[in-house]
Amino acid sequence: MKLATLRVGGGTRAVRVEDDRLVDLGHDDLGALFARENWEQAAAAADGESWPLEGADLAPVVPNPSKVICVGHNYTNHIKEMGRELPSYPTLFPKFADTLIGPNDPIVKPAETEALDWEVELVVVIGKQVRRATEDEAAAAIAGFTVMNDVSMRDWQFRTIEWTQGKIWDSSTPVGPYVVTPDEVGGVRPALAVKTVVDGQVMQSDDTGTLLFDPVQLVQYISTVVRLNPGDLIATGTPAGVGHARDPKVYLVGGETVVTEIAGLGACTNLVVKES
Amino acid sequence: MKLATLRVGGGTRAVRVEDDRLVDLGHDDLGALFARENWEQAAAAADGESWPLEGADLAPVVPNPSKVICVGHNYTNHIKEMGRELPSYPTLFPKFADTLIGPNDPIVKPAETEALDWEVELVVVIGKQVRRATEDEAAAAIAGFTVMNDVSMRDWQFRTIEWTQGKIWDSSTPVGPYVVTPDEVGGVRPALAVKTVVDGQVMQSDDTGTLLFDPVQLVQYISTVVRLNPGDLIATGTPAGVGHARDPKVYLVGGETVVTEIAGLGACTNLVVKES
Repeated sequence: MKLATLRVGGGTRAVRVEDDRLVDLGHDDLGALFARENWEQAAAAADGESWPLEGADLAPVVPNPSKVICVGHNYTNHIKEMGRELPSYPTLFPKFADTLIGPNDPIVKPAETEALDWEVELVVVIGKQVRRATEDEAAAAIAGFTVMNDVSMRDWQFRTIEWTQGKIWDSSTPVGPYVVTPDEVGGVRPALAVKTVVDGQVMQSDDTGTLLFDPVQLVQYISTVVRLNPGDLIATGTPAGVGHARDPKVYLVGGETVVTEIAGLGACTNLVVKES
Repeated sequence: MKLATLRVGGGTRAVRVEDDRLVDLGHDDLGALFARENWEQAAAAADGESWPLEGADLAPVVPNPSKVICVGHNYTNHIKEMGRELPSYPTLFPKFADTLIGPNDPIVKPAETEALDWEVELVVVIGKQVRRATEDEAAAAIAGFTVMNDVSMRDWQFRTIEWTQGKIWDSSTPVGPYVVTPDEVGGVRPALAVKTVVDGQVMQSDDTGTLLFDPVQLVQYISTVVRLNPGDLIATGTPAGVGHARDPKVYLVGGETVVTEIAGLGACTNLVVKES
């Protein structure tokens, strides 16, 4: 299944993509759907109101997750471009619900940064609450996958030794367009082409099968620390090719279109606009 | 005013401390209260059901904040004990709602850590939504102050360059007992004695007036990055004397009682218990 959260009538609705239609699932958003027991069966069976896919205004797949946990240093090539050793443990940092935007919303460049950068990421979407998950429990807790552009304000990210303040900017981070269930992408450790394209130029290109810590391992690791709730998002890290690691460095300045895409999951396509 | 969130009847209630009684404020918790227009007047005027203060089972003052943002390196003495330079910018890192416990709940030492440490902190509680707050707007957005023991798993904190995974453990972090409005503590930049006592031994002792970045500056800085919502918490950093910086290092092992206290705000008093 492909699921999404549609903006409609001043609110949002959880929907299933069915050919060229979006079928209402009876919940306000996918976070509410995933909080329901046996949401898979309910989502598959839903057959109510529908809206056209074409021209749909999509919200972040989960507009209000209790946690967004991001992983750094998780593609071998990106670790090397940043000049780091292969890590023994995943590096974790946060985003918050207020950080998220829809998959086609504009990325507004804040006046306070001159180092706006892209990071395409495979995102694990949690479908049931887990703590200290075994491998099987972790696999079963994965509702599906989506795409995030982990937009980063590099000047703020590196002001201090903690990256948080460069990662949590308000309404900065596209996530979507769909949550695609594991059965549609080869399971819970999908090997999918992942790329970022800025104004037609390929900036990042890798394969999610090369993740150092795969989705199941990440659910196990993070759930050791803290419960994961339905709708929580784990962004699994970005491959080589970010603007900050280029020579010379390249940042987004406004007017560009950034496409972050993962084969089988779709793309976030975002116009960069300067704050007025 | 002194406000709190009381556990009662299987749920919680926002209350005002009135002598030895806790007066119902008509909301489930202080987060819901602060989301209301003119909550100060409503809270001051409430005169309904009440419960005894003695023996009250208090929840985290805000059980479900949209953001908990913590500040590192904010007391001169603590920066020096960690061997660091005085910073130009606040260092930010996260906690999540799932990390919080009530002010008198046990701190459960997870089996996965051997380096459980304390950090007493003055917490700014946000009372209205702000973004890019001016100094006056920042001051007006402060509902009041409370106490947090920013319990830290040092072995996990320092596994990677990002501290997050040592700071977000499930149900690890006491916060409370009250939100005390600024008028009761000398305003929005209070100078209050702050200390941690472990089994009767004073481990941290300083004054919140020595913060490098004061509460108003922190609201301004953080709200530049991201909106702050009613009920959001900003933990303003800890003074010298953490267990990890001692020689030899000292960690909590179970059986101790940790008191984190700020004059005028009250204390979190927590028994450390080993996970069964």
